[in-house]
Amino acid sequence: MTEHTHKQFDTELEKIRTGVLQMGGLVETQVANALEGLKTGNTALLERVIDGDHRINLLEVEIDEECNQIIAKRQPAAVDLRLVMTVIKAIADLERIGDEAKKIAKAGKRLHSGDHTFSMRVDLSHATGLVLDMLRSALDSFARADVSNWTAITKQDEDVDASFKGTMRQLITFMMEDPRTISSSLEVLFIAKAIERIGDHAKNVAEYVVFLVQGRDVRYAKSVAAEAGNTKA
Amino acid sequence: MTEHTHKQFDTELEKIRTGVLQMGGLVETQVANALEGLKTGNTALLERVIDGDHRINLLEVEIDEECNQIIAKRQPAAVDLRLVMTVIKAIADLERIGDEAKKIAKAGKRLHSGDHTFSMRVDLSHATGLVLDMLRSALDSFARADVSNWTAITKQDEDVDASFKGTMRQLITFMMEDPRTISSSLEVLFIAKAIERIGDHAKNVAEYVVFLVQGRDVRYAKSVAAEAGNTKA
Repeated sequence: MTEHTHKQFDTELEKIRTGVLQMGGLVETQVANALEGLKTGNTALLERVIDGDHRINLLEVEIDEECNQIIAKRQPAAVDLRLVMTVIKAIADLERIGDEAKKIAKAGKRLHSGDHTFSMRVDLSHATGLVLDMLRSALDSFARADVSNWTAITKQDEDVDASFKGTMRQLITFMMEDPRTISSSLEVLFIAKAIERIGDHAKNVAEYVVFLVQGRDVRYAKSVAAEAGNTKA
Repeated sequence: MTEHTHKQFDTELEKIRTGVLQMGGLVETQVANALEGLKTGNTALLERVIDGDHRINLLEVEIDEECNQIIAKRQPAAVDLRLVMTVIKAIADLERIGDEAKKIAKAGKRLHSGDHTFSMRVDLSHATGLVLDMLRSALDSFARADVSNWTAITKQDEDVDASFKGTMRQLITFMMEDPRTISSSLEVLFIAKAIERIGDHAKNVAEYVVFLVQGRDVRYAKSVAAEAGNTKA
């Protein structure tokens, strides 16, 4: 590689890296706005989230294409290749977080469209705070190529799952006490589920960063252990 | 490239291609078994699905690693590169279909664990038949690098979505009529949702095949149209 080509290559890698962070920032705003609009009944904000989703979709396609170009032209190896692969996977998860934000916004619009004021009755702020924090941490890990957040993120993911189960139990109680709340409770249940899935995707992004930094695939550690157990048996 | 290297390259490409089909076959069996176990209350079959999921996870990691090796060593271009990228994305969706099968199996176990026989009350066989067919079609499109199934798959995906909405309405009615069924109805609702998501993932696989064959990204066609509209305005 000539020095010129080398510089170009660096610029291209920097571009996809920045692309992930830009997309991540947008996605974070979408999630925060969806949850804010849901809480306050600000339907204009919810509309904005719904309309904003396609920008995220297009960013994914754009960055994806840039990654393909880099692979085709530059034959990246070692950490450069891991960066490209990390980017390709991270943007797919970010795009899906965007989808979940859109789902929350749509459900929020339906809930707030009735004649009387809708009250959430369950408190999603704990789970909400956790997944927004996980998303920020995961993007921060990526930006700094630093895996020190990893343990905290997996712990937060467990908290989010536990919080979802608690919300579900609460909603079941409400529905049993007053079956007229069943439809709206289901909307809230799917919102809680969307929040939980945002946590899963944020955790995925953090997993890719471990692969990027350490070159090892930490997904499915349990599967590896199970398979090792089978072989021994 | 020497003829020898060329042959090795072809063998490697064939290996990841076959890997997808092998993984797809496993995933299809997992989904079919989960739904069969759910229907018949065969908890041993459901257990087998739950235990079998880690094999799918490991296959994903294995094929993913092979794809990385090919990119690092062979600098694939044009259709070869598109094949590698298609494989990387397709196995991620297949792995998630595996997760949904596992979720269905776990819910099935909970539903059938009670003292009296559990009856589904809603008929999921239409949606089930559709998603299994979509999955087979998508894998078949990939195997033959043929996009002629694409339109049918998108149509089936719409049917699956409509079917989910119908199931949800039915379940709401049951829950309102008899609030004691709320917990089990929610299990069934999440199963219906898992089936719907299997359809989404199968559609994703079919979308990647369009990219593989035609070199165009058909994801988010609506987003492209929306963005074009914004630019014009």
